[in-house]
Amino acid sequence: MAQLRLGISGLGRGAMLTVPGLAANARIELVAGFDPSREPRLGLRRAYGVRAYESFEDLIAHPGLDAVYIASPHGHHASQAIAAARAGKHVLVEKPMAVSIAEARAMADAAAESGTCLMVGPSHGFDGPVSLAADIIASGNIGRARMIQAFNYTDFLLRPRRPEELDRERGGGVVLSQATHQIDIVRRLAGSKVRSIRAQLFDWDTERPADGAFSAFLFFENGATATLGYSGYAHYDSDALLGWIGEMGRPKARETHARARSRLAGTDEAAQKQARGFAGPASNTAEPPVAHEHFGFVLASCEQADVELTTSGVILHGDTSREELAAPLPETRRTNIGEAFAACVLDGEAPIFDGAWGLHTLACCHAILRSGDEGREVMLDEIVSESH
Amino acid sequence: MAQLRLGISGLGRGAMLTVPGLAANARIELVAGFDPSREPRLGLRRAYGVRAYESFEDLIAHPGLDAVYIASPHGHHASQAIAAARAGKHVLVEKPMAVSIAEARAMADAAAESGTCLMVGPSHGFDGPVSLAADIIASGNIGRARMIQAFNYTDFLLRPRRPEELDRERGGGVVLSQATHQIDIVRRLAGSKVRSIRAQLFDWDTERPADGAFSAFLFFENGATATLGYSGYAHYDSDALLGWIGEMGRPKARETHARARSRLAGTDEAAQKQARGFAGPASNTAEPPVAHEHFGFVLASCEQADVELTTSGVILHGDTSREELAAPLPETRRTNIGEAFAACVLDGEAPIFDGAWGLHTLACCHAILRSGDEGREVMLDEIVSESH
Repeated sequence: MAQLRLGISGLGRGAMLTVPGLAANARIELVAGFDPSREPRLGLRRAYGVRAYESFEDLIAHPGLDAVYIASPHGHHASQAIAAARAGKHVLVEKPMAVSIAEARAMADAAAESGTCLMVGPSHGFDGPVSLAADIIASGNIGRARMIQAFNYTDFLLRPRRPEELDRERGGGVVLSQATHQIDIVRRLAGSKVRSIRAQLFDWDTERPADGAFSAFLFFENGATATLGYSGYAHYDSDALLGWIGEMGRPKARETHARARSRLAGTDEAAQKQARGFAGPASNTAEPPVAHEHFGFVLASCEQADVELTTSGVILHGDTSREELAAPLPETRRTNIGEAFAACVLDGEAPIFDGAWGLHTLACCHAILRSGDEGREVMLDEIVSESH
Repeated sequence: MAQLRLGISGLGRGAMLTVPGLAANARIELVAGFDPSREPRLGLRRAYGVRAYESFEDLIAHPGLDAVYIASPHGHHASQAIAAARAGKHVLVEKPMAVSIAEARAMADAAAESGTCLMVGPSHGFDGPVSLAADIIASGNIGRARMIQAFNYTDFLLRPRRPEELDRERGGGVVLSQATHQIDIVRRLAGSKVRSIRAQLFDWDTERPADGAFSAFLFFENGATATLGYSGYAHYDSDALLGWIGEMGRPKARETHARARSRLAGTDEAAQKQARGFAGPASNTAEPPVAHEHFGFVLASCEQADVELTTSGVILHGDTSREELAAPLPETRRTNIGEAFAACVLDGEAPIFDGAWGLHTLACCHAILRSGDEGREVMLDEIVSESH
């Protein structure tokens, strides 16, 4: 069986959540890692018995390496992805693809020039119920998607953070990190690119200044629309609408948000954050999912039915019936990401979430930021053409 | 005790729902009615032992009449309210206040000239949990309201309808009739007037052409925003998020939407519609509410807490706690409307929902329609100034 020898760049929380779904793939062999800190490097060896380097360059030079999964901080995505592509390595890069559109374009260009795969993810656009809903809508059996809504009320801003995660200029705040999920989801459901966006940004916690919440209205090229709502301020918890299953598909305590501020008080946030990755206890993402990962409430109104996303699949609310459809639940989380990446590298199958997809989603994030700043509707063309 | 002798114009569904809350008021005496059809007239006599006239003019001329509750079709609101005001009668007019802004202005002018009360309602802006939430926010204890969302997925379009109820030019479709509720709710929570609106309209059921769904993004003068979502197509039912308590505060069957189309098939809609008013069985709105009336999912994010509206009151999701607060449940539905109207007429207390309020809400409805038609953000000033 053909093998894809994979390296992991950045052994934090993102890698912790996604590496199991990559390593579980029979065609992928995890061969090395990179992290500037010692603890995560030791954690990777503990978990997978492979070496982690102290520099990205050393990882790329690892003998026989075919591809790299870039899960480093947002600001490093572009330079690492471009260096990897130039060295002939395929790239799976965490969302957001990059901080700026110019960076994203350079990444896509570098992959095109070297003929390597560039896949962006994993966002919740990969979740099983999203795929199932997108397939049902694409079948045409329930008419066109017209009015979509997606909202999520989380504790994002009150989790342990590194300083740059709260700084918009360095890709921080809830837009690049969190709107990306919602944009990927609604793009899949609408089956169209976005033409324009009207949005509002909120930064209302004086103790923790950052883009902490937003509303956005997306107008798709095919006439569909989506309204997005997001708050990371740990007040209301929209997991109440999903049977108290959390974002990662595991049961969740109802007190999570009410405890967020006391959990954070007086702690070393950077150390806490690191401990949620490979530096921490290996068990913290090892439990198998009992339900699908999700990103809050999502409902797509089509001409002949509304499609409600749940943590087990979808509910089709049709003209005369209500039908529950299950999406297959993998034994290991995110195996579909490993499958899609292996299919790209080994079989030449173009992924849904390729560089062009990631660039458009990032452009939507920037349109949200600009619309909020300037109080006007922003065309996607305007965002994309400026970066040329 | 001072008495308010009240006449009812239009003995349909609206009157059926609201008259009990007016008649229950010790200071209000129901003395007469008007409806062009015989069955509703007989129904009013059966229910309240009072005469109903065959013409509005005869109702206004009823000896000793002080005020009139106008629950006639939308197109008659303005002419009847103006005629009543000129005859010195106080007016409670059903929402929407009128079809056009010019009509609404003429109604407000007529009331001002005659020195009579003009109150608009009842919309769900009167609901107990809305009042409670508005009071909490107005107290300033949880900071300013910033990001509000309100959505409701109903069977509005698949209930029995008269032809004009599906015709936008005559005030039909879901915007004037249904957005009015959401606008009144979010205006109370935001505590501000609306500056501009970006919206999208949907008319996707070819078997029942009408404005059947919309999304709208409201920008308030004080910096708050609200996103509204509404579908009347009887697919998803947002009462699922409110414990299967229906709009009227009564338990609701989960199959309601799936049965909407078969219930309607082959029936005489106008006759069915009439039977839901005083022409029908007197019992159909007589059951006491077990919960508050509501208009779907409503969540107001303020700086220090999110306020979630429920059918019993509100839940305050604060920085470190989750607190449930009950709103007092009246024995008879809508008694607060009778109280506010009696206070206006007999005590000279200005109502929240006066003519100026109703005009601004109607202007918001027209801004939704125009924004949807023209695909651009519409300023409220533009809508209001045109009608001068």
